[in-house]
Amino acid sequence: MSPKITTELLKHLRQVMKNPRYVQEPVQAYIVPSGDAHQSEYIAPCDCRRAFISGFDGSAGTAIVTEQHAAMWTDGRYFLQAAHQMDSNWTLMKMGLKDTPTQEDWLVNVLPEGSRVGVDPFIIPADQWKRMSKVLRSAGHDLVPVKENLIDTIWTDCPQRPCKPLITLDLSYTGVTWRDKIVALRSKMAERKVMWFVVTALDEVAWLFNLRGSDVEYNPVFFAYAVIGMNTIRLFIDGDRMMDPAVREHLQLDSTLEPEFKIQVLPYGSILSELQAVGAGLSPKEKVWLSDKASYALTEAIPKAYRYLTPYTPICIAKAVKNAAETEGMRRAHIKDAVALCELFNWLEKEVPKGTVTEIVAADKAEEFRSQQKDFVELSFATISSTGPNGAIIHYKPVPETNRTLSVNEIYLLDSGAQYKDGTTDVTRTMHFGTPSAYEKECFTYVLKGHIAVSAAIFPNGTKGHLLDSFARSALWDCGLDYLHGTGHGVGSFLNVHEGPCGISYKTFADEPLEAGMIVSDEPGYYEDGSFGIRIENVVLVIPAETKYNFKNRGSLTFEPLTLVPIQTKMIDVSLLTEKERNWVNEYHQKCREVVGAELERQGRHEALRWLLRETEPLARVQ
Amino acid sequence: MSPKITTELLKHLRQVMKNPRYVQEPVQAYIVPSGDAHQSEYIAPCDCRRAFISGFDGSAGTAIVTEQHAAMWTDGRYFLQAAHQMDSNWTLMKMGLKDTPTQEDWLVNVLPEGSRVGVDPFIIPADQWKRMSKVLRSAGHDLVPVKENLIDTIWTDCPQRPCKPLITLDLSYTGVTWRDKIVALRSKMAERKVMWFVVTALDEVAWLFNLRGSDVEYNPVFFAYAVIGMNTIRLFIDGDRMMDPAVREHLQLDSTLEPEFKIQVLPYGSILSELQAVGAGLSPKEKVWLSDKASYALTEAIPKAYRYLTPYTPICIAKAVKNAAETEGMRRAHIKDAVALCELFNWLEKEVPKGTVTEIVAADKAEEFRSQQKDFVELSFATISSTGPNGAIIHYKPVPETNRTLSVNEIYLLDSGAQYKDGTTDVTRTMHFGTPSAYEKECFTYVLKGHIAVSAAIFPNGTKGHLLDSFARSALWDCGLDYLHGTGHGVGSFLNVHEGPCGISYKTFADEPLEAGMIVSDEPGYYEDGSFGIRIENVVLVIPAETKYNFKNRGSLTFEPLTLVPIQTKMIDVSLLTEKERNWVNEYHQKCREVVGAELERQGRHEALRWLLRETEPLARVQ
Repeated sequence: MSPKITTELLKHLRQVMKNPRYVQEPVQAYIVPSGDAHQSEYIAPCDCRRAFISGFDGSAGTAIVTEQHAAMWTDGRYFLQAAHQMDSNWTLMKMGLKDTPTQEDWLVNVLPEGSRVGVDPFIIPADQWKRMSKVLRSAGHDLVPVKENLIDTIWTDCPQRPCKPLITLDLSYTGVTWRDKIVALRSKMAERKVMWFVVTALDEVAWLFNLRGSDVEYNPVFFAYAVIGMNTIRLFIDGDRMMDPAVREHLQLDSTLEPEFKIQVLPYGSILSELQAVGAGLSPKEKVWLSDKASYALTEAIPKAYRYLTPYTPICIAKAVKNAAETEGMRRAHIKDAVALCELFNWLEKEVPKGTVTEIVAADKAEEFRSQQKDFVELSFATISSTGPNGAIIHYKPVPETNRTLSVNEIYLLDSGAQYKDGTTDVTRTMHFGTPSAYEKECFTYVLKGHIAVSAAIFPNGTKGHLLDSFARSALWDCGLDYLHGTGHGVGSFLNVHEGPCGISYKTFADEPLEAGMIVSDEPGYYEDGSFGIRIENVVLVIPAETKYNFKNRGSLTFEPLTLVPIQTKMIDVSLLTEKERNWVNEYHQKCREVVGAELERQGRHEALRWLLRETEPLARVQ
Repeated sequence: MSPKITTELLKHLRQVMKNPRYVQEPVQAYIVPSGDAHQSEYIAPCDCRRAFISGFDGSAGTAIVTEQHAAMWTDGRYFLQAAHQMDSNWTLMKMGLKDTPTQEDWLVNVLPEGSRVGVDPFIIPADQWKRMSKVLRSAGHDLVPVKENLIDTIWTDCPQRPCKPLITLDLSYTGVTWRDKIVALRSKMAERKVMWFVVTALDEVAWLFNLRGSDVEYNPVFFAYAVIGMNTIRLFIDGDRMMDPAVREHLQLDSTLEPEFKIQVLPYGSILSELQAVGAGLSPKEKVWLSDKASYALTEAIPKAYRYLTPYTPICIAKAVKNAAETEGMRRAHIKDAVALCELFNWLEKEVPKGTVTEIVAADKAEEFRSQQKDFVELSFATISSTGPNGAIIHYKPVPETNRTLSVNEIYLLDSGAQYKDGTTDVTRTMHFGTPSAYEKECFTYVLKGHIAVSAAIFPNGTKGHLLDSFARSALWDCGLDYLHGTGHGVGSFLNVHEGPCGISYKTFADEPLEAGMIVSDEPGYYEDGSFGIRIENVVLVIPAETKYNFKNRGSLTFEPLTLVPIQTKMIDVSLLTEKERNWVNEYHQKCREVVGAELERQGRHEALRWLLRETEPLARVQ
């Protein structure tokens, strides 16, 4: 992977930062966040402005360019990747390390007195604007909104914003109609005494209307906003997608409806002016509910006194708790996904020793097997297919320059998943196709112990996920090891593979309590730079737990793995497992056999079934 | 315990809330926080305003009185006690439970439009003022400072503010001179580019000057403030305490000193006007450092642009990391404390069956044995001596109305500690003097497993204490049990028994990372209302841990118990312990034998020594 040469680009950007055609007054710094106008994690090519200017294309990062400096903040998952992709014009700011300054502190340090810091007000979330602007102001600088995106002005071959057809989802997939979702939303609005709710996150728009799209790779969403009033529904969406008869029928656009369920369709670009009109027409006590992560531009459209901002919207919270139809869909999706992976691993076992399987070939083969499954739509994220030292690059994606051949001498880490019409998957398995070293097995086993500690944890109702994070690390910590990423994230139901408001991380203190029906990943790991990476990831469903006692009648919760893919027993040092852990592995493998075995049988995939049976032999107690 | 009748008092308070002699305009609500002007947890009798108005005298709680309502917010430790001590005029607001409103939200809900909420600006911390005032303002109300404390106006027999003699501590106790502490503080100030530092917390003043006092029961502090400039030291303190030759010598008040170490002594009451003068004389870029928990009154004395506020002050952080002299002192104090408790438990074992030992008698006896130890000063908090159902009142203190007789049929919980000139102790043991039930043993063993999980935890340098909290609960959670308090708090060195900035709690996210030399408590528990309470508490020292590997060269930490008092093996269901846990208990008891045994021997306390040897017999493996 050679770095992108950015000398000319940066020169050009620094020119437009002073060009009165784009900025009223010159800005001495320009911030390029990684999100789009919906604060999405995965973004369309036209929104990859930070990657365009820097070369670093990981999923998280913020670039800041001043007259003298260019700096990139990203987290532990991307330290290696960012260092590889950026040229010497850029300074890497390693977030989470003790001595790394915040963006604000760094700006205060490098800027001349009385500087202006520019940012696109549609891209920066309001909460971040507030925090930055406060620190900058107190140091004598100004954060200023720059209407025209300065990257767009220098990005001559910027791709067009996608506008692809929509998919409608019926009740068998969603469990609840969009009308009932609107009713529930309005009741939450009434509870909080707000008159309007602005839907800005793409997955929230998709979930609310039971629609899916493909405007953004891996995330089945489409570019749209919605503004829900107590008696009105406005959907801001472009293109002729609303001409599709199936969509019109689904949204009942041509039916005679009670006025409060009549959807008014408006152009995507009119959201700001429409919201400003809403803002201007509010009478006292009429509040407008927005996520505090909505863009600064949209938040400012509502006068401050009328804003009701929360870190998580009622849609975000409702969406996280999957209903029976969604849970069943997720189960089906995970069984199909396991079938594909049994096929893949069986194939790899035969092919790897031949020396012809590269990381890209393996990733493509995984996609091929997945695409054979019913209701497959696309992958849910870029497959991390990494062997040997590449495994230590936490969010690695193989490209021709880095593509390594799988061998019987190196650990192989595959983190992959798919979108099926009935659910979203995300699974990591770490395999060795030869004979792992004792040290590799030792590290793998600590990671496994952490995985089990979370998966088998029992905890009271109302517990936040971050309180479980240390369970995943304890076995590693005992030996002086650790990993520099969180342990789990919420997973959507045929939606974004990363979603709020729950998660399992030492960093997340604003997470909502876990409740039955929520779905998260459990993915501890261990990485040795330049040598190997290990991660074991299941998607797990929060379920009620039966306990001997029931303190204060609170009830308890635990997890049920939805992912049913064998964990390579060859990598386990059984002598390091407790009896409880050994039983957990054996019971898990027994379930893989029964559930996935039956599906392999049904699909006539006999060779993969034999592989599954061989890989799920119970672990014997070490004498 | 009968509740305090507050009808007349509340009537009186509601009158002064409208009396133009005290308030410019009537206030519709008046907040009575539990702290003093230094935001102390333990306060002098003259500062017990919240207890005076409500009857509830627990260590934490905030009262709010409106024209119609009187409400008290307190946490899980005090739900039972507050309910017992307050009459029906009061509504108990159980903090930490899901449906309990915040003080702000409650006020917004009950107040008529455009209300004024009064509070003493010296008592309310600036950060709390900011939060409350923001919420109130956005709901159309005003938080207003009421100069004269309204409780003081109706408290006719309010005791005088104490002004007791000071104790000077020499290098053998403190390890660092006050001059060197000032030098270190000024270097932290220079790092942050601040010119002034205001010391508002009483234990920070005491620590900085290597002085102790006895103005507040249990906490060896004295009423004072200090303002440290780069070249000046001002100490605000009342009384003739500065006439004491030992104090004058210690502070070198009569010596010829470099001017930057010359201490200027000023009256306690002049802090506000002196600070206002400092504030008025600042030139641009001259910042003043204050804790964000300093009072609103003092914070407001510095113009906003000149304030540098942090959650923890450099003194708080320096004070938490004990040096070798302090650590050795703490070790000595804990050995003496263990001697006293061996004597006590040996005595209780003989006396309890006679039916003559009440909770108060036991507490007095504990104090008697402690007072026989060298350098004993006073207790470090009100002894929690509780048997049977009283044990479930988490911060119970026996009074004649509740005093229960210890028996061979009930669990006895003793949480007690002392101030010695060389260190502060805090230990809880739960004992049964007859035959505990299987259920009692089961619960005790889960608590013990939690205690060990924290005490034996190994974790990376830089880990915050709150990440360890779930380790203490895991065994309880597995069976559906839990406890409604944090797991540990920082402990001072011959200073406050509760101190920041570290701790172990699911609630504390603003805690500073643990580092070697910090001292915290490890005290999980289990409580069954109306029946019994269990808690096992040691004070533990953070020490470097040896680990097999060393990820990113970060180094690891673990804990060394300073408390060396036997954990009653009769209460342990050994079949529930893992081998590792059993070994921990045996090694811990072995250390108690060696270290405390030697001291008992030295002090000629042979009977207590025999008790110790009997109680520390190793646990045998259950077949």
